Amino acid sequence: MDLQKIGERLQAFADEREWDKFHSPKNLVMALVSEVGELVEIFQWLTEKESEDIRDNKKMLQKVEEEIADIEIYLIRLSQKLGIDIEKAVLEKIEKNAIKYPVHLSKGSAKKYTEFNT
Amino acid sequence: MDLQKIGERLQAFADEREWDKFHSPKNLVMALVSEVGELVEIFQWLTEKESEDIRDNKKMLQKVEEEIADIEIYLIRLSQKLGIDIEKAVLEKIEKNAIKYPVHLSKGSAKKYTEFNT
Amino acid sequence: MDLQKIGERLQAFADEREWDKFHSPKNLVMALVSEVGELVEIFQWLTEKESEDIRDNKKMLQKVEEEIADIEIYLIRLSQKLGIDIEKAVLEKIEKNAIKYPVHLSKGSAKKYTEFNT
Amino acid sequence: MDLQKIGERLQAFADEREWDKFHSPKNLVMALVSEVGELVEIFQWLTEKESEDIRDNKKMLQKVEEEIADIEIYLIRLSQKLGIDIEKAVLEKIEKNAIKYPVHLSKGSAKKYTEFNT
Repeated sequence: MDLQKIGERLQAFADEREWDKFHSPKNLVMALVSEVGELVEIFQWLTEKESEDIRDNKKMLQKVEEEIADIEIYLIRLSQKLGIDIEKAVLEKIEKNAIKYPVHLSKGSAKKYTEFNT
Repeated sequence: MDLQKIGERLQAFADEREWDKFHSPKNLVMALVSEVGELVEIFQWLTEKESEDIRDNKKMLQKVEEEIADIEIYLIRLSQKLGIDIEKAVLEKIEKNAIKYPVHLSKGSAKKYTEFNT
Repeated sequence: MDLQKIGERLQAFADEREWDKFHSPKNLVMALVSEVGELVEIFQWLTEKESEDIRDNKKMLQKVEEEIADIEIYLIRLSQKLGIDIEKAVLEKIEKNAIKYPVHLSKGSAKKYTEFNT
Repeated sequence: MDLQKIGERLQAFADEREWDKFHSPKNLVMALVSEVGELVEIFQWLTEKESEDIRDNKKMLQKVEEEIADIEIYLIRLSQKLGIDIEKAVLEKIEKNAIKYPVHLSKGSAKKYTEFNT
């Protein structure tokens, strides 16, 4: 995914509409939340199995795609505003998670790392 | 951002830990929500101006980076489970938004497109 | 639930700590979101059946109770700031929902009311 | 607020529509999240000052009331399913918060209690 190019398009989009004034990081975080709420709405009454079957349901999949796009757009915009490199952040987090969740402690378990000692 | 490669690392990470059974799309959406909650917690008492200043606050920025990474990770994982191409979804959504929010109707206004006719 | 009395205690709590300046409705909404995120975290990897069994799991139940309390506290505080009567709002919404979701259209179905005509 | 009576109305509402099967605690938590997302949408582009002015804006206030009602409804329904007494939980949480946030440490500060020692 070309984050640089998408970021530039989002900036141009906001500039044309004079929306930059609304796009403080705080507000972008809130906008992200409301998009996440729309994603959740699609899944709230589904069983886990039904949520997997969305993969083969073109209409539902289209809706999910749009919400994921909205979330990604605000995530990119927020990162742009704060000077964050998402890819670097993700790669570093995966490293961290590997340390927080060693295979022998977390195998087959949904425990949070903070519960490992209790 | 190399979504393919990150997706593969996330899949390997889950496989090693036998976490795949927890990763139904429904559950991944919930995990996304709780990460978003942690992002919001950082911003909730800040003024908009203070939220902008995070850019220059190394400690705060590190925390925001980690939460953005967590959200991105679940977004990639969810998309992987449903066969969604995030970049394609984002580019299509930007096109859609350009139609929903024509410059002459949305300039300088935070109105939702559904309010344009009222 | 004595909303009046709880509201007064919350106001006194905030006054003693000089927290009123942080408690704009916008910020209270964000605080509500981060508490909801903590509630979600408890449920994210559970099956629906396991989520029902929390009823008999004292330790888990205690955690859920605390998160529900946090959410309720911010809901009361937000309503107080905006002059909203929660009970009246709830009773009116139940009436509205009865009209939006007539029994013959919604029986056994999780459809949203906006999908009834499609 | 008569939680008992509202709870009974919500149960009857669900029973008439055969919705009980959808109302696992896990699903109710998700439904709560999507309602919170709708509340956030109202506030996301407002300044803190504008969010305070909603108090005097009848149309906006009506929208906020409806979202608060939706959140409260799911909170009551979730508590009912798990056998949680919301009022008791709230009163206990206020006591806990008084200990977690002693006046001398938290006066005028938005710090989280976990940051008091750092």
